Amino acid sequence: MRESDLLSAIASRSANLGARFPHVLTGPGDDCAVVRIGTTDCLLTVDQVIEDRHFKKGTPLDLIARKAIARSISDIAAMAGTPICALATGAFSKDFDQAHADELSAALKRWGEYWNCPLVGGDIASLPRETDPLTLTVTVLGSTHAARGPILRSGAQPGDSIYVTGKLGGSFDPATGLGKHLTFEPRLAEARALADALGPNLHAMMDLSDGLGRDASRMADASRAHFELQADLIPRNAPDWHRAASEGEDYELLFTASGHVPAAVANSAVTRIGTVSSGSGCFIIESTNSINARDLGWDHT
Amino acid sequence: MRESDLLSAIASRSANLGARFPHVLTGPGDDCAVVRIGTTDCLLTVDQVIEDRHFKKGTPLDLIARKAIARSISDIAAMAGTPICALATGAFSKDFDQAHADELSAALKRWGEYWNCPLVGGDIASLPRETDPLTLTVTVLGSTHAARGPILRSGAQPGDSIYVTGKLGGSFDPATGLGKHLTFEPRLAEARALADALGPNLHAMMDLSDGLGRDASRMADASRAHFELQADLIPRNAPDWHRAASEGEDYELLFTASGHVPAAVANSAVTRIGTVSSGSGCFIIESTNSINARDLGWDHT
Repeated sequence: MRESDLLSAIASRSANLGARFPHVLTGPGDDCAVVRIGTTDCLLTVDQVIEDRHFKKGTPLDLIARKAIARSISDIAAMAGTPICALATGAFSKDFDQAHADELSAALKRWGEYWNCPLVGGDIASLPRETDPLTLTVTVLGSTHAARGPILRSGAQPGDSIYVTGKLGGSFDPATGLGKHLTFEPRLAEARALADALGPNLHAMMDLSDGLGRDASRMADASRAHFELQADLIPRNAPDWHRAASEGEDYELLFTASGHVPAAVANSAVTRIGTVSSGSGCFIIESTNSINARDLGWDHT
Repeated sequence: MRESDLLSAIASRSANLGARFPHVLTGPGDDCAVVRIGTTDCLLTVDQVIEDRHFKKGTPLDLIARKAIARSISDIAAMAGTPICALATGAFSKDFDQAHADELSAALKRWGEYWNCPLVGGDIASLPRETDPLTLTVTVLGSTHAARGPILRSGAQPGDSIYVTGKLGGSFDPATGLGKHLTFEPRLAEARALADALGPNLHAMMDLSDGLGRDASRMADASRAHFELQADLIPRNAPDWHRAASEGEDYELLFTASGHVPAAVANSAVTRIGTVSSGSGCFIIESTNSINARDLGWDHT
């Protein structure tokens, strides 16, 4: 199963959702859904973390809980939103004992509150077998930026520059299974500061989870625009640009904007890595080579 | 692991949530959370369905999707609310192919819209092994009843009568794995009609998922009241009252009210099965025996 194909199929099947359900302002396919409740616009997102997929067996429960909460919080950051509350589910293998389940649920609650996002509900279930993988899901409800509203990934415009926060790659240490993918700080403050500072000049934003190459391609597709990234401008923790753009789990912000953009916001450096023009597709330029960015990054097959 | 103990621990750990997060009107422990967004109160709930736990392997995908959506919709009904939108996650075993994943996600979308609850987002992931159980989670956001607000399970008052909709037991056919547990109709219309008709006399409500005995005990505990149910009044599909009160997965409404209550609402009969008095605990009276209802029903250990 190729997850990205399936998610694309779901998004395109829901393309006309707003016509039939006018309170749905943005349906599947962006970092969050945008839904109007009364006169207020809300953000909604859900994500899952699965043993041997998103963390190695034996990872400290506190870090598993942290990652489960932080991934969904990062989706709220990607829209320049603010978390309101969360719901979590846990499915535990048959031999997962009560003390560990209690430790994990306490950690979920603590990390939710750390990001000012209290856990208001959830569910717990035992899986049938001892070998079944520990699986957590976290839903987060958030508010949109008061002045700018939600920043979609579909808003990039020809003439924009393309930016990322922080450095990319090297999030997962294959020897230990540890690394930034477990301890990243969702870019809530950075995203809000960008929306405050740039206002209507901040055109498109998303968080980087599957690698710059694949995620920037998605933003180009959603915006029906052509993206060109300069390999030597990509800020990196990895030893080369190819790995920095491929490894994924960065949870940094990718955004496009016109006009002046500061070199740093909140706790993060901001680096200009490319430009938007009319056309389609996303390419990474390395001296005289042009590499299709869609072929980089991480797809779950 | 005893799920009910763990869920109780989580609820009591969150008892003072509203003091620190004033927009959280009702936290973990009821059918839904109640959260204030702007000036509007919303309902939030999440539930999961797991292969070999909530459905047998080989159950038609359409019925699995239906149950996953319907369980969370039933939580909205339990508060007399109306669904607004849903998010779903699917975790599939390694050998689950693209066509089946696509069929399942189309069915989730279709059943959401059947209950006027469009799917606005979600996530899909492959599980590491071929034996890993298919797991779905569904989050539903809902609105509260405009006049009556959310009906909590903590509102039962001495002097109330206790009622259920429909008939209990016999939801799961052990020979086929099929039955009402896959095809039940969440009692949205019944709950709204009760809130419309009874207004402030409708004191407490919940949906029956773990069996009347266990669920009525939870309502008595939440309301700090004493419940007495008459065994011979319990309306049943099962051959005896004990099974009717134990088997679970009824997804009927349990509620308490003062004053006149109609004998039917929307598409369901309403049956008076007992009374609330001051005190604690929930007991089922069968001629001269008084059975602690807490010991009945379904607990996932």
